[in-house]
Amino acid sequence: MQKALVFLIALFTGFASVAQSEYLDARAKEDEKLYKGGESYEVEIFRQDFKNKKPKNVIFMIGDGMGVSHIFAGLTANRGSLFLENLKYIGFSKTASSNKYTTDSAAGGTALATGKKTYNGAISVDENKKPLKTILEEAEENGLATGLVSTSAITHATPASFIAHQEKRSMYEEIAGDFLKTDIDVFIGGGYDHFTKRKDGRNLVKELKQKGYTVEQDINKIKRVKKGKLAGLTAPEHNPGLKERGDMLPLATGTAINILSNHKKGFFLMVEGSQIDWGGHAGNTIQVIDEVLDFDRAVGKALEFAAKDKETLIVVTADHETGGMAVLDGNFETGMVKGGYATNSHTGLMVPILAYGPGAEEFIGIMENTDVHDRLKKLLLGN
Amino acid sequence: MQKALVFLIALFTGFASVAQSEYLDARAKEDEKLYKGGESYEVEIFRQDFKNKKPKNVIFMIGDGMGVSHIFAGLTANRGSLFLENLKYIGFSKTASSNKYTTDSAAGGTALATGKKTYNGAISVDENKKPLKTILEEAEENGLATGLVSTSAITHATPASFIAHQEKRSMYEEIAGDFLKTDIDVFIGGGYDHFTKRKDGRNLVKELKQKGYTVEQDINKIKRVKKGKLAGLTAPEHNPGLKERGDMLPLATGTAINILSNHKKGFFLMVEGSQIDWGGHAGNTIQVIDEVLDFDRAVGKALEFAAKDKETLIVVTADHETGGMAVLDGNFETGMVKGGYATNSHTGLMVPILAYGPGAEEFIGIMENTDVHDRLKKLLLGN
Repeated sequence: MQKALVFLIALFTGFASVAQSEYLDARAKEDEKLYKGGESYEVEIFRQDFKNKKPKNVIFMIGDGMGVSHIFAGLTANRGSLFLENLKYIGFSKTASSNKYTTDSAAGGTALATGKKTYNGAISVDENKKPLKTILEEAEENGLATGLVSTSAITHATPASFIAHQEKRSMYEEIAGDFLKTDIDVFIGGGYDHFTKRKDGRNLVKELKQKGYTVEQDINKIKRVKKGKLAGLTAPEHNPGLKERGDMLPLATGTAINILSNHKKGFFLMVEGSQIDWGGHAGNTIQVIDEVLDFDRAVGKALEFAAKDKETLIVVTADHETGGMAVLDGNFETGMVKGGYATNSHTGLMVPILAYGPGAEEFIGIMENTDVHDRLKKLLLGN
Repeated sequence: MQKALVFLIALFTGFASVAQSEYLDARAKEDEKLYKGGESYEVEIFRQDFKNKKPKNVIFMIGDGMGVSHIFAGLTANRGSLFLENLKYIGFSKTASSNKYTTDSAAGGTALATGKKTYNGAISVDENKKPLKTILEEAEENGLATGLVSTSAITHATPASFIAHQEKRSMYEEIAGDFLKTDIDVFIGGGYDHFTKRKDGRNLVKELKQKGYTVEQDINKIKRVKKGKLAGLTAPEHNPGLKERGDMLPLATGTAINILSNHKKGFFLMVEGSQIDWGGHAGNTIQVIDEVLDFDRAVGKALEFAAKDKETLIVVTADHETGGMAVLDGNFETGMVKGGYATNSHTGLMVPILAYGPGAEEFIGIMENTDVHDRLKKLLLGN
């Protein structure tokens, strides 16, 4: 009944004004805008004492599309607390790309990975399509261990920006090929088909094994890997939503940290909560909250390690905001949240940066997304 | 034509669903959602070096209804920079009142002024309607000079929460009466009629003069007052919008600082940019931006003093977010901003805290609005 009514309104007003499409799209999922409350988890408060002023390890965590509203929706749903609250040093990142006020995930990821603004759609190439060196590549050159974890395909724009160089984000097979050009230690995400079902006939899984990687598709096998090189390809393309994929992200994050922390010289790990963005596109509060809380549990895994290690900097941010999300109502006791969405696209709104660990104090203030890269690089690699 | 179409859509859909009223209200002012760009101003970068760790003076600035989107809309309109960017220490304030997820300005103001959550509508009284001591009153008891500045009536919820104690925010005449019970040094805002056209027949302007206040209504006279006690009542009720009232807020802020800084023991000053909230309620991006930039220029006045003085803490925050505002598009070169609004009311979204000066580092992290009070009080008064 509710849905039928909403559909009628959508149809009705659809003729009147195309400019209103953003509202109509958000309206099409009216029942999913209301999160009625779900299970919550306990949040640990971690100590804020660290060794040295510079980190040995960096865990860089990107909530795709995660603005202040997405975080606050998750915080309300989890009865008023998040692991994220342990990240006390806060700033804002201005996300515009070189050619647009509103970035996509490719240009946004490139800015965070390389410190250079580029055109929407670019995977770590500049406006002339020349490759831009990423912080992951620089970490590797400096002898550090490196890793990528994502709930999308590992070949998707955000993780791709840290390791690949391609003119277009849609060049998934070329991006998969770029993984083989590096010595990345761990990567876990979807995208198996981009490594195997390829136009060029190469079987990159076979090649990965030849290079010494353990390749697994099942998160329950992946999570038992403790050392060596690991390629976890957990889905043919993107991983499914939270209910189907379960604890894949927190497990993958913990696994990657376990393996990378064997390396005495330190590591760089990027972890993406990819599907927060998809919840924002859909105007689906249930999806936004499921994905924010999943991402927050991955932050919890990172904090668990960093609090013991005392030499690890965790920086959480987003590539852009998605949905023009508002938090219209909520309840800290039941976890209920009513979201509102002004668009089904990305917006240009600045996004929060939250940091924990040695060097965290460098991430305060309002800065460009490229500054996030520059500060991470300076802290981890000294220049 | 545009307006007529919008009106027709509003009428059309108005029958279909009352629940959609938030969208319809926002939609009713479609042409005002687009800020086409206006004059910009130069922003000075101030030095970040201060005397001591604790401030002698506090300038507490509240952008009513000012969420991250409102700030970013202003930042875009001003070609990518704001005085606010000098406030490097950033946190978030959870704004819920004691009885609602979404606060009003009275309970929000009370939390910031007294450190206690109360019911919506309460002016610094608790849930049992017992008075709660405000930071302004405590500053006064400690021998500090005090002041209030606002673009609304000075008797409106936010400034009232710092000096009055009343069951309902609408008790403007009683609130005006409460000003006379204190020894506040400077107050500048609208609300002349609440002091003069009263049911109880008292003429509070006369009484203020008897207490030694200079009372002026014209901002051009107000701005020339350099010492003594000053009551500036610049409008019968609220001040008009920016275009009509001009530089009243930056001028009033500068004037208040001039007078208060004569006091050797230090001062507490609260400055409110009241009408940012009204822009959010109306879904009017032009109004939001005019008011944010006016407020930012007042922040500039505060910074000018604090950077020279080196003993002044400036903390900027909001009582709540208004409008569920999104920044749908923008242009840093022309200053164009397209706003979107998910509601014509307040939302429960956490709001930014930005701080500059000695003690600023205490305002990082995600905290309750009451913590903002507690930290200000501890820094200024030592407990």
